[in-house]
Amino acid sequence: MTIEMFEKPLGMRDDFPSIAKQKARLRKRGTELIERAGYELLQTPTLEYYETIGKISAISDDALFKLLDSQGKTLVLRPDMTSPIARVAASKLLREKMPIRLGYYSNVFRAQKREGGRPAEFEQMGVELIGDSSLYADAEVISLAWDILQELGIRSGRIVIGHARLLELVLADFGLNAAQSENVQELFVAKNGVGFEQLAQQLPVPEHKQASFRKLMQATTVADWKPWINENNKEQQKLYKDMERLEKLLGKNGLGDAMTFDLSFSSHMTYYTGLVFEFYAAGSGFPLGSGGRYDGLLEQFGLQVGATGFGLRVDRLIETLPIEETQEPHTLILFEEQSEQTAFDKAQQLRTQGKRVTLQYAPAVKAYEQFTALFTEVIRGEELRNG
Amino acid sequence: MTIEMFEKPLGMRDDFPSIAKQKARLRKRGTELIERAGYELLQTPTLEYYETIGKISAISDDALFKLLDSQGKTLVLRPDMTSPIARVAASKLLREKMPIRLGYYSNVFRAQKREGGRPAEFEQMGVELIGDSSLYADAEVISLAWDILQELGIRSGRIVIGHARLLELVLADFGLNAAQSENVQELFVAKNGVGFEQLAQQLPVPEHKQASFRKLMQATTVADWKPWINENNKEQQKLYKDMERLEKLLGKNGLGDAMTFDLSFSSHMTYYTGLVFEFYAAGSGFPLGSGGRYDGLLEQFGLQVGATGFGLRVDRLIETLPIEETQEPHTLILFEEQSEQTAFDKAQQLRTQGKRVTLQYAPAVKAYEQFTALFTEVIRGEELRNG
Repeated sequence: MTIEMFEKPLGMRDDFPSIAKQKARLRKRGTELIERAGYELLQTPTLEYYETIGKISAISDDALFKLLDSQGKTLVLRPDMTSPIARVAASKLLREKMPIRLGYYSNVFRAQKREGGRPAEFEQMGVELIGDSSLYADAEVISLAWDILQELGIRSGRIVIGHARLLELVLADFGLNAAQSENVQELFVAKNGVGFEQLAQQLPVPEHKQASFRKLMQATTVADWKPWINENNKEQQKLYKDMERLEKLLGKNGLGDAMTFDLSFSSHMTYYTGLVFEFYAAGSGFPLGSGGRYDGLLEQFGLQVGATGFGLRVDRLIETLPIEETQEPHTLILFEEQSEQTAFDKAQQLRTQGKRVTLQYAPAVKAYEQFTALFTEVIRGEELRNG
Repeated sequence: MTIEMFEKPLGMRDDFPSIAKQKARLRKRGTELIERAGYELLQTPTLEYYETIGKISAISDDALFKLLDSQGKTLVLRPDMTSPIARVAASKLLREKMPIRLGYYSNVFRAQKREGGRPAEFEQMGVELIGDSSLYADAEVISLAWDILQELGIRSGRIVIGHARLLELVLADFGLNAAQSENVQELFVAKNGVGFEQLAQQLPVPEHKQASFRKLMQATTVADWKPWINENNKEQQKLYKDMERLEKLLGKNGLGDAMTFDLSFSSHMTYYTGLVFEFYAAGSGFPLGSGGRYDGLLEQFGLQVGATGFGLRVDRLIETLPIEETQEPHTLILFEEQSEQTAFDKAQQLRTQGKRVTLQYAPAVKAYEQFTALFTEVIRGEELRNG
């Protein structure tokens, strides 16, 4: 036996009972809200074909856990839930029933390279609304995510909203080609303002547009976006109007003060084609969740329909929420051979009342003090027998 | 896009909403009983080191999903939960608090070689009682598993009970060496009576013991075992007395008619050292769950303590239990731009009452009949607005 026996692979964690309990609570509350909003929960397999889900998922290849099956095909541990749900939604059984609302609470996997870094396995809870290209669908999923965060106890939450397509059009209007646009967006994903300043100097942005270009990361409301919208471009006009309507819809749903509209907002998930968003807790640099519209993804499964959704990171919710450390009532009944029957009867009686009872043969307890300290009440079988 | 896009790896399944819902129900009811009996639920990672968990788990090597991590170490997808929980129990945090009761509801993995065969990923729910070598511990876990099966709705369930150590001693008394004993037990695992008959003829069992030897698979009560117990062997005498006491203890806990004591009963999980058992539903050839005592397993993690536990197969429970196909109330509110606000208000009102409501922008619905058929009530926004 070596100390390695106790080790876990890089980025893998045990959820000890207190964390497991908190997660169970989040799972219960969150999935209840998801179901109440009309979504059906489903579960997809942990392993998927690399050719199907691995490539579509938009997770970089070196973050995928890959393995070979007995037939030599490459499998991946699912890196996200959006692509597997798209696969299910495109199946015959469901494609007739659009729009469909699917929800999940599942673990996903990302291979890590360093010790003490990010988790290699974490849980997500979210929804996908598939087959509805209306703005209402976007407003619905954002509002639902927001309601869940409120219900779970996230106070002073924030949401940052951008638009992948509109940003693409705006960058094209500055004269950037596809590769240059991509470089800029990578810096936006990293929220790298300094890098963007430096790159801006090398890009072929016309002199009279330079000032405007450099302000791209500064918009916070939809009205702020106005100066970048090309009045001669109908698509930009329509998308801008959509954003104005969205701001109103979400305002009505109670997100008024929480919204930041950031024209430069980009996601590393490259499948987003429209709205993109991220949720934050006050004072936290890590998003609690994210989502957006991915109208092209379903095409890979032969379906030309729009889709939108969100995923919340359960591990970050756990880190953000206050720890609920109340010791719940837990009775210990200690018995010996002669008090066996009375102890059993008492335990059954208390459990029928809904109480939590550990029934323990006393001679098997090694350290009496440490063991009994775990309980809120200790009953000795002897007492039961005599009284 | 090829049809392969919709395929899943061998033995992998999607849980569509009706199955996912049934599983959620089993999970809720089962884990509630596990907690009420004093067990703490925990969650271990999907990936473990092959050197630690893969080798200890007693699952044959070709049924393990293996992969290499970025440091070249071999990982496995956990093939069972007993070994990971043993790893956790042996950690510093818990080893002072013996006996400890840990429970889980988790998916485990077994690589498959054929199409249409067994699932490669399935869920188990179970407990491990670690640090208690008493017979009460065995009786506790069996009774708990039984209570869960009852609560979930398994009627006319059965439990088959054997004893790994006692069988080993009995086989040795017939003059079998370790290899011969192992061959016999493999046939017992497969419940292969014909194979056993054939092998019996080739084994060096003394002539006067042949008749007795061939009857090994026929015992059904503890009293039936008596003829095979060596009166000069103290260990056998003690183990036999234990079985008599266990039969009584379980009888008191309501398992009276459900028990079969099968002296030849063996498990393919080679780490069992004492009691072994399997649960069945009437008329089903596949066990719903199994368990036993594994006093040696913790030694691999440097702990010399006894342990016992069970695991129930959620997939087989789902197959066995009647399908609950009641359509739950689900209201659809269809709205258009002009009824947007009234529809939103109505949905919120109904959801606050705990009702399940899908709010759908009407023009986004493709096939009206198919879509509305999914709901128990349909409200049109127009009606709300006018009425």
